[in-house]
Amino acid sequence: MPLVHISLRSGKSETYRQAIFDGLYLAMRETFSVPEDDQFMLITEHDAANFRYGASYLGIDRSDDLVLIQLSAMNSRTSEQKKAFYQRVVDILAENPGIRSEDVFVNVLEGVKENWSLGNGIAHYA
Amino acid sequence: MPLVHISLRSGKSETYRQAIFDGLYLAMRETFSVPEDDQFMLITEHDAANFRYGASYLGIDRSDDLVLIQLSAMNSRTSEQKKAFYQRVVDILAENPGIRSEDVFVNVLEGVKENWSLGNGIAHYA
Amino acid sequence: MPLVHISLRSGKSETYRQAIFDGLYLAMRETFSVPEDDQFMLITEHDAANFRYGASYLGIDRSDDLVLIQLSAMNSRTSEQKKAFYQRVVDILAENPGIRSEDVFVNVLEGVKENWSLGNGIAHYA
Repeated sequence: MPLVHISLRSGKSETYRQAIFDGLYLAMRETFSVPEDDQFMLITEHDAANFRYGASYLGIDRSDDLVLIQLSAMNSRTSEQKKAFYQRVVDILAENPGIRSEDVFVNVLEGVKENWSLGNGIAHYA
Repeated sequence: MPLVHISLRSGKSETYRQAIFDGLYLAMRETFSVPEDDQFMLITEHDAANFRYGASYLGIDRSDDLVLIQLSAMNSRTSEQKKAFYQRVVDILAENPGIRSEDVFVNVLEGVKENWSLGNGIAHYA
Repeated sequence: MPLVHISLRSGKSETYRQAIFDGLYLAMRETFSVPEDDQFMLITEHDAANFRYGASYLGIDRSDDLVLIQLSAMNSRTSEQKKAFYQRVVDILAENPGIRSEDVFVNVLEGVKENWSLGNGIAHYA
């Protein structure tokens, strides 16, 4: 059930953006115990004036290709799963569409199992 | 104080989108103990390339009319209130603007009472 | 590491929007223990039909200049820090770009320390 919000600068091709979706889905499948077809993801594109980032915070050399990923999920993943997810996302997106690992920012938001309804008004996990 | 982010595909009429706001407000009033005029809601419209969903995950037959609703609120609602909210949202939106129950996805994010300031720099609930 | 989503009505100048970024960064630096250059902020602009607010909820007189701020951060700030942050944001934004204190709405989302990766696939705080 993760709901993923992806924010990036405007102007990337559709192919590039689909590769981000595909890569995140693959990383969630491999490291986050996400079942087949459990993918709900949104991209929001921002002009430069609406996109502010620390270009060297923590000594990481970020660029305008920065992708800010916020993933909302049930609080059922371990710390190890989260670490594996971060690493896998970076590896996959480096390959396609070719995003530098410095430009991948991830934040996970968590909630209890009754906080999700995936359709039909049912709390599917509660 | 819920802050509601609604994501859907671009192209729905203004009337349709206002009905979503009205319906969510009504559902919050009826099931979520939300006082009169406590409505803070945003719609973000996405092109197809920026909107990815599992079209049959959990056996639910979703369409491009899918509405992804993320509601941030204080952690004061019971599990029963959340379940009542999901069901009421689905029932109301089915009536107007006429959204299939399969196309309503809801996620609740929660936080402690001091995490809200509704104006004037005051933590209104702390 | 806060990741800040700012939502407002469309049409404000670039200077105005940069002042919001600058002001939030300053307030985070002063009250939220945020290191230098730790700023990751997004603005999403909404047409009237996609922006619904309670114009007088809690007796606060809001206008179309309302700014809805959602800040995701580690759960390391005290209640006092949050209160200081709300007040500082209001004071700074009142000065520049000149936003009425009634028009500043803030919500904080929190998570555990392993929920962040600021680049390179590393969970920097875990």
